Amino acid sequence: MNPVDIIIKKRDGLALTDDEIGWFVRGFVAGAIPDYQVAAFAMAVYFQNMSDAETTALTQAMAASGDQLDLHTVLPKDVVIVDKHSSGGIGDKTTLAVGPIVAACGLPVGKMSGRGLGFTGGTIDKLESIAGWNPELSDAQFHQQLQQIGLVIAGQTADLAPADKQLYALRDVTGTVPSLPLIASSIMSKKLAAGADAIVLDVKCGRGAFMETLAEAQALARLMVAIGARAGRKMTALITQMEQPLGRAVGHALEVKEAMATLHDQGPADFQELVQTVAAEMLFLGKGMPPDAARAQIQQVIQNGSAFQKFRAFVAAQGGDPQLVDRPEKLPLAAVQMDVPAPQAGFVQRIDARAVGLTVAALGGGRQKKGDAIDVSVGVICHAKVGDAVQAGAPLCTVHAADEAAAEAAVQRIQAAYEIGAEAVAPLPILYDRISSQVE
Amino acid sequence: MNPVDIIIKKRDGLALTDDEIGWFVRGFVAGAIPDYQVAAFAMAVYFQNMSDAETTALTQAMAASGDQLDLHTVLPKDVVIVDKHSSGGIGDKTTLAVGPIVAACGLPVGKMSGRGLGFTGGTIDKLESIAGWNPELSDAQFHQQLQQIGLVIAGQTADLAPADKQLYALRDVTGTVPSLPLIASSIMSKKLAAGADAIVLDVKCGRGAFMETLAEAQALARLMVAIGARAGRKMTALITQMEQPLGRAVGHALEVKEAMATLHDQGPADFQELVQTVAAEMLFLGKGMPPDAARAQIQQVIQNGSAFQKFRAFVAAQGGDPQLVDRPEKLPLAAVQMDVPAPQAGFVQRIDARAVGLTVAALGGGRQKKGDAIDVSVGVICHAKVGDAVQAGAPLCTVHAADEAAAEAAVQRIQAAYEIGAEAVAPLPILYDRISSQVE
Repeated sequence: MNPVDIIIKKRDGLALTDDEIGWFVRGFVAGAIPDYQVAAFAMAVYFQNMSDAETTALTQAMAASGDQLDLHTVLPKDVVIVDKHSSGGIGDKTTLAVGPIVAACGLPVGKMSGRGLGFTGGTIDKLESIAGWNPELSDAQFHQQLQQIGLVIAGQTADLAPADKQLYALRDVTGTVPSLPLIASSIMSKKLAAGADAIVLDVKCGRGAFMETLAEAQALARLMVAIGARAGRKMTALITQMEQPLGRAVGHALEVKEAMATLHDQGPADFQELVQTVAAEMLFLGKGMPPDAARAQIQQVIQNGSAFQKFRAFVAAQGGDPQLVDRPEKLPLAAVQMDVPAPQAGFVQRIDARAVGLTVAALGGGRQKKGDAIDVSVGVICHAKVGDAVQAGAPLCTVHAADEAAAEAAVQRIQAAYEIGAEAVAPLPILYDRISSQVE
Repeated sequence: MNPVDIIIKKRDGLALTDDEIGWFVRGFVAGAIPDYQVAAFAMAVYFQNMSDAETTALTQAMAASGDQLDLHTVLPKDVVIVDKHSSGGIGDKTTLAVGPIVAACGLPVGKMSGRGLGFTGGTIDKLESIAGWNPELSDAQFHQQLQQIGLVIAGQTADLAPADKQLYALRDVTGTVPSLPLIASSIMSKKLAAGADAIVLDVKCGRGAFMETLAEAQALARLMVAIGARAGRKMTALITQMEQPLGRAVGHALEVKEAMATLHDQGPADFQELVQTVAAEMLFLGKGMPPDAARAQIQQVIQNGSAFQKFRAFVAAQGGDPQLVDRPEKLPLAAVQMDVPAPQAGFVQRIDARAVGLTVAALGGGRQKKGDAIDVSVGVICHAKVGDAVQAGAPLCTVHAADEAAAEAAVQRIQAAYEIGAEAVAPLPILYDRISSQVE
């Protein structure tokens, strides 16, 4: 085989074989195929696309480029290992609530999560709001905690899909990021390497998400479900709304508090709805539970406190201070709280989720590059959401900032992110679509 | 400016400015823009094309990346410096005859030519069949000879368009060679840097050429004429037939002999016709001569021997042995001559020019890579051309080879390259089309 022939074949719109794709990916990782040939290949893929079969081959080749986990070595054989993945949004603390709920329902959750970059926060960063909580676990610790508590959330220690890391770095500087097969294979290669039997994908859609239109989100969701199914995994993609921030809290410690409140059945309605939808889908894939039965059990583990206790045990097992879980008011709190007044009376027409995310990042809650320090205490609490009626001067949000100047700047930005009009509008739905490889 | 933004702009089909293209080319040559970004850019150009304005900017930026010659420093100001360029074909010894004819008509020709690679020969290699002839001239020698004799053909000593050299090397390994704006800018950047005021392009078309169809050749010709005209040059592109070898001789010394015979008015009809067409076009661009007047003067300088004398003086000035010009039978001659018999009677329907070129290369007359030694004596003389009637067993060609075994193998290949049928066919035309920036 020859890299140029493979580039030309793709350039001319012909389908590549699994062998050709595998050989190309291995050659890239080994350094035998230089960056410039991979860059030309990626641009050819941008224009000519890839079939489901080609994208699956690319995904599997990237998944095979590093460690491939198998949690079945430590869990009973008949346990279906279910992972979840969110494509990322503003105020997305779903894993923090879904993990304990699903684990409390008897389905073990052993997950690797990432840190945030840009204007979306990472699950690991959020959990680090809890003093002492440690994402760095040895394999032995991970396995022991998974067996004993049924819930582990760790930083990515394994070398998952290094080919994806290399390819993404190259795509980032060659104008080849927005290619559906390259996006789908990037996400799915890490999920396949992480070894789940079943995967629930939460594909965010709207102006606060990477996929802004429903058609784009559906195309990505469909492709990822196809890749997973071809690789022998049970797959569901939920396409969910990301036009406005999810729930009310945006910012690390604020989101942890909101997730904990949700485990006490006191979360915002939209976030509760999303959490239950995702959790029910995980129980469907993992235990074959019909939606009604799953929802009933989810209600039960919330009402009886077992979901919250699961969270508490998980935090404590990873070195976090359980007192902070019992008394969330002791979590890091920013020095200044400042309300954002509604400039006029009316109904909230739109909230620019991306602008809210960028504002929180500017307050110190975001990273420009890997390794930057973040302030977990800052953020925004949205009191009014789309469809809500507000009076002039009433607080739309409360900004949590390190000082007055930062708070004032954030107030301006948040005010501009809200559009208030005279017309009554309906609240936004949470679930737009569901695409599954499994029949209910 | 940022390379990724430029790649994305081209990827999305937007027009780049002259500044953006110039900045990108300079960055590439300086090593500031890495190969992988240029490779992605080239693939984006492959798919999104470039406007005439963009292609001209690319060409000019590449021309400006190295030396830019100006022969007006040594020639009278009112002399229009005319260059010619052939896109390359089998048996293409046009420069060897056109140069002396045009110079004998009073239009100075100072040209840089290349060596051959693959199955087409280079003008410099052909001239080196003449013992002592030297393509390596100092600037001073070049200028003196141009003033005194009016004809110089030198190897490319100046550093012309190094950006093109770099870009071509990258295109070759990234599947981005067959892009019209990239092909046109590659050819034209060297022509612009060489400093001609007017350029006659001989765009070969047919199965022995890079452009196999008339539509492709026309598109390339139109674009190159547009680039030259935008850069202030007088331009004509002639689209000429390359279905079968040009003239009868293919092979270095054999082609030199044929060119000299043509200067004695004894060349093959098709080659004579091409030579006169190209020469007349150069006289039109360089001296404004109408076609009839140009053809008349060309006939005159052939008939009165001044074209031949110009060739002789040119060879001698560059160290070649003029006795070899007077007695061409003393030029290198291969040890074995073997006829290729016609397998049947009929009319020559087709001659696969590429197969003839590859056969001569296999005889030792071609290079696989730069610097390979070549045997200037080997080659093929085609006695029968398309449209000719042949008897069974009559010689289609004579192979000139170093030994019997090589000759026999070549005979087989040449026989296969000829298609003979019962139907009478017309001889092939030489000129398919003419595209000029100048009004006659």
